[in-house]
Amino acid sequence: MKRFPVLRFVRTLALGAALAFVTHAFAQTDALPSWNDGAAKKAIIEFVQATTTQGNPKFVPPAERIATFDQDGTLWVEHPMYSQVMYCLDRVPAVVKAKPELAKVEPFKTVLSGNREAMAKLSEGDLLKIVAATLTGMSVETLNAEVKKWLAEAKDPRWKEPYTELTYLPMQEVLKYLRANGYKTYIVTGGGQDFVRVYSEATYGIPPEQVVGSAGGAKYGYDKDGKPFLTKEPKLLLNDDKAGKPEGIHLMIGRRPVAAFGNSTGDQQMLEYTKAGEGARLSMLVLHDDSKREYAYGPATGLPATKVGSFTQALYDQAKKAGWVVISMKDDWKRIFAFE
Amino acid sequence: MKRFPVLRFVRTLALGAALAFVTHAFAQTDALPSWNDGAAKKAIIEFVQATTTQGNPKFVPPAERIATFDQDGTLWVEHPMYSQVMYCLDRVPAVVKAKPELAKVEPFKTVLSGNREAMAKLSEGDLLKIVAATLTGMSVETLNAEVKKWLAEAKDPRWKEPYTELTYLPMQEVLKYLRANGYKTYIVTGGGQDFVRVYSEATYGIPPEQVVGSAGGAKYGYDKDGKPFLTKEPKLLLNDDKAGKPEGIHLMIGRRPVAAFGNSTGDQQMLEYTKAGEGARLSMLVLHDDSKREYAYGPATGLPATKVGSFTQALYDQAKKAGWVVISMKDDWKRIFAFE
Repeated sequence: MKRFPVLRFVRTLALGAALAFVTHAFAQTDALPSWNDGAAKKAIIEFVQATTTQGNPKFVPPAERIATFDQDGTLWVEHPMYSQVMYCLDRVPAVVKAKPELAKVEPFKTVLSGNREAMAKLSEGDLLKIVAATLTGMSVETLNAEVKKWLAEAKDPRWKEPYTELTYLPMQEVLKYLRANGYKTYIVTGGGQDFVRVYSEATYGIPPEQVVGSAGGAKYGYDKDGKPFLTKEPKLLLNDDKAGKPEGIHLMIGRRPVAAFGNSTGDQQMLEYTKAGEGARLSMLVLHDDSKREYAYGPATGLPATKVGSFTQALYDQAKKAGWVVISMKDDWKRIFAFE
Repeated sequence: MKRFPVLRFVRTLALGAALAFVTHAFAQTDALPSWNDGAAKKAIIEFVQATTTQGNPKFVPPAERIATFDQDGTLWVEHPMYSQVMYCLDRVPAVVKAKPELAKVEPFKTVLSGNREAMAKLSEGDLLKIVAATLTGMSVETLNAEVKKWLAEAKDPRWKEPYTELTYLPMQEVLKYLRANGYKTYIVTGGGQDFVRVYSEATYGIPPEQVVGSAGGAKYGYDKDGKPFLTKEPKLLLNDDKAGKPEGIHLMIGRRPVAAFGNSTGDQQMLEYTKAGEGARLSMLVLHDDSKREYAYGPATGLPATKVGSFTQALYDQAKKAGWVVISMKDDWKRIFAFE
């Protein structure tokens, strides 16, 4: 380099001009256009500005800029049923076709009956049997292909849109805004890690290696031609829910997040753990209080926490006490879906 | 953007000039100056050029550019003992000070005696007891602080250098060369994930979230003031060795690597798994055949594989048959350490 001081100067000048332009363009644009002005939007913008401004006491070095997001109910709709559960139920006929003896065995018999009321009453143990039968026992590549195919065809019953269209536009903006400011964005979900990884990149711009989820084993072996492959096993390695979230974050990321976003008691420990770190920290909770444009459940309604998205009054009280920022879907979000 | 076509043009021009300069500078520089010209160096350069050139049939999209590296014996010296084992042995006096009853119990009694010959004969079960006593039972922060302190003081007995100086300069160049070409570099080690993460960023430029290693649990809990923290547990979640390497790669990365580097039977499955993928794949094995500048063991010597770095003749034969590239330390590396 030392031999070309003039070229070096030209390069510095060129990069400088480019950067100045980009910075200028950003300053003029609202990075969160689907958010109404209010405490939640303000908290996000102030946090990003403080943690990315050199010299600010809250500055966070780029390598430490980790932001984690729960998925179901935080990045996309979780009501009336997690999309992964829908996938597993939809896969039951194919599983029974391959193993006809299951047709007479519960819970498969109930699922095949198509009786929605009976299906809604299936116990957690029943659901685990269905999950094991539909998400394990095949190669990783086969699972990926099956999930991809299902996602291309399946539609949410209310909006008649593919599930991957049911992401919250305001949260998509937060993901992009954080990434534009040097943050690595992670999904930290109680859902199946391999399931979410199939669509995370196309849906959220989050690559598979930045998805932390409940994870089963994948066993190494060889096919008849000696070619190695991995088989999905029913053994659970990580239950990425509640205390399992900070534990999973430590296992898979190895750093405490600086910002975390959730919407239920399953996210409580992740939000606590994030907020308990030193320096600037942002913990946010999405409150489902928009019965018209989406759903209202949990403390927003005074009704008991539902089966999915169990956002309790106690969690709401903890949020207020601990300085987490509550996002009201009704008041803080100008627009909820991109397809609207 | 549409309102400022001139500015946009200036920006494009500026970025273009900068990129052209950078590309030009790279083309003129040898990215692997510590490598002798030969089959190994040629294989690396051809692989990188083919996988990063648009239009080349071997082109790999940036998102899929994953390269994995074993650590001990591949990125740094593993002889005569893994540095992590040295750490655990060095920590025994402090552990016994806190729990004096251990002084009379094996294997701690032998370690305290300082008798190197007796210590070398400790069984794997004994070593596991020492690992559990020295790497678990404390908070994640305490472990990090202790490892950092040890690394700053401990020195390798042969070169009298800190362990973190014993990295192979040619491999450091490969890491940088791959990253400069859009590859994400990962460590995939049989060593302890939390141990390696303490120094991976400073030593290799590999952040903690890109270290996959043998991992114990970390349990979430609260201190007396209600502040949450994680405690290292003796429970093993991932034994990241042999078949555990592709299994760990699937768990933590979720993509098959395009390039992989190892040096022992512990890396066999990772190299097979990498090579079995479609398209361009690079699997490389470091052969320790330089008794003068480093060590010679395994098939290079005709001697049996040693306790650490068990590179067997069978692995060498598999490499030759499967088209993995063997790196001869003696012939392929011009220089081994930066401190030389």
